[in-house]
Amino acid sequence: MARPVDKNAVPAVTVPRLTMYLRKLRELQARGVERVSSKQLAGMIDLNAAQIRKDFSYFGEFGTRGVGYEVDRLVDEIKRCLGLERSWNVIIVGAGSLGTALARYRGFAEQGFKLTAMFDASHKKIGVSFGDGRCVRDVADLERFCEEEDVDIAIVAVPGHAAQSIIDRLVGLDPERRVRAILNFAPVKVFAPRDVVVRQVDFSSELMFLSFYLDRES
Amino acid sequence: MARPVDKNAVPAVTVPRLTMYLRKLRELQARGVERVSSKQLAGMIDLNAAQIRKDFSYFGEFGTRGVGYEVDRLVDEIKRCLGLERSWNVIIVGAGSLGTALARYRGFAEQGFKLTAMFDASHKKIGVSFGDGRCVRDVADLERFCEEEDVDIAIVAVPGHAAQSIIDRLVGLDPERRVRAILNFAPVKVFAPRDVVVRQVDFSSELMFLSFYLDRES
Repeated sequence: MARPVDKNAVPAVTVPRLTMYLRKLRELQARGVERVSSKQLAGMIDLNAAQIRKDFSYFGEFGTRGVGYEVDRLVDEIKRCLGLERSWNVIIVGAGSLGTALARYRGFAEQGFKLTAMFDASHKKIGVSFGDGRCVRDVADLERFCEEEDVDIAIVAVPGHAAQSIIDRLVGLDPERRVRAILNFAPVKVFAPRDVVVRQVDFSSELMFLSFYLDRES
Repeated sequence: MARPVDKNAVPAVTVPRLTMYLRKLRELQARGVERVSSKQLAGMIDLNAAQIRKDFSYFGEFGTRGVGYEVDRLVDEIKRCLGLERSWNVIIVGAGSLGTALARYRGFAEQGFKLTAMFDASHKKIGVSFGDGRCVRDVADLERFCEEEDVDIAIVAVPGHAAQSIIDRLVGLDPERRVRAILNFAPVKVFAPRDVVVRQVDFSSELMFLSFYLDRES
């Protein structure tokens, strides 16, 4: 008998891997693949099979030796575990080139992330449309917006020198209202209280992956 | 005695982890930390210590039980392994909001990635400066540029429908001249010959990491 997932039992260490499994499993679904073994998955995503079996063990004992895991069921379990069965309200702070690019990024809506507002400090940008008839708001209204609306996640795409003060404002609100998750694209290390989750995006690491291969070949 | 790194012995599976180790080890360097154990690192970057020891074993046997690894030496070995001891010529195809944001991204130059040209198909963008007095080129000149200049890595930041044809053009050149590494930001799966390395960037997976935490708390 499979036991239900206890989300709190799944350690944070597995999360980056879960997103990777999910992407690969959805590809398999799209190709009509019904079952996959840990060994097959290991070959596809560059991880060892034992690690994969350990990660999946949090979802109950439904892998069968020699038969593998049900792809549909794994997708459902991972989505549930990642909190992707509901939608999340997202704001973007910074309507520069990166913020604008992120606002147009199709993948967000497809995964249940709903862009509810965008903010900037520049009068050249405030009032400009960013899609669906909505306009960039004045960052001076950031606190009021967060107090009146449910904001789950803030994407910070401001210049490095401005990032920490924006984050301080987002997390400085009443604990009931404050933003509890931040995706920081500014190229600086930022700090937030322990109960606020912060992810730092670093494009350089993607390029390092490529340089590894190029250096090896040349 | 430590043996020199044989780059070809380091499997691709370790590369995303090497970039993560490098970032953390540089933080430790900046804080003046001289030695670190696999167990300490494991706690900092959410991986198990055995995996870390296995990854570092490719750099020779210079970790000492109870004493740990020399931080400086690890940084050097990882940089060498990732091909970060030389510089790489990078072009960006697509001067839209994302391409422009990437052209301004400071981290690239710091890691030895040199932006040599930027291309677009729109006459509104061709000729516009993207920094250091250089201007966006007509994408019609893409092949000629790649034939005349050394291009190591192409960042593709065009709309999804245009991505594959750009990649076909980049990899369709004479084997000596063609671009051997591609970082694709277009939200579509793209294909390239086996000897061309392709990395796909997906911003959604970063948001999934946050939704995991939010869902757990709520």
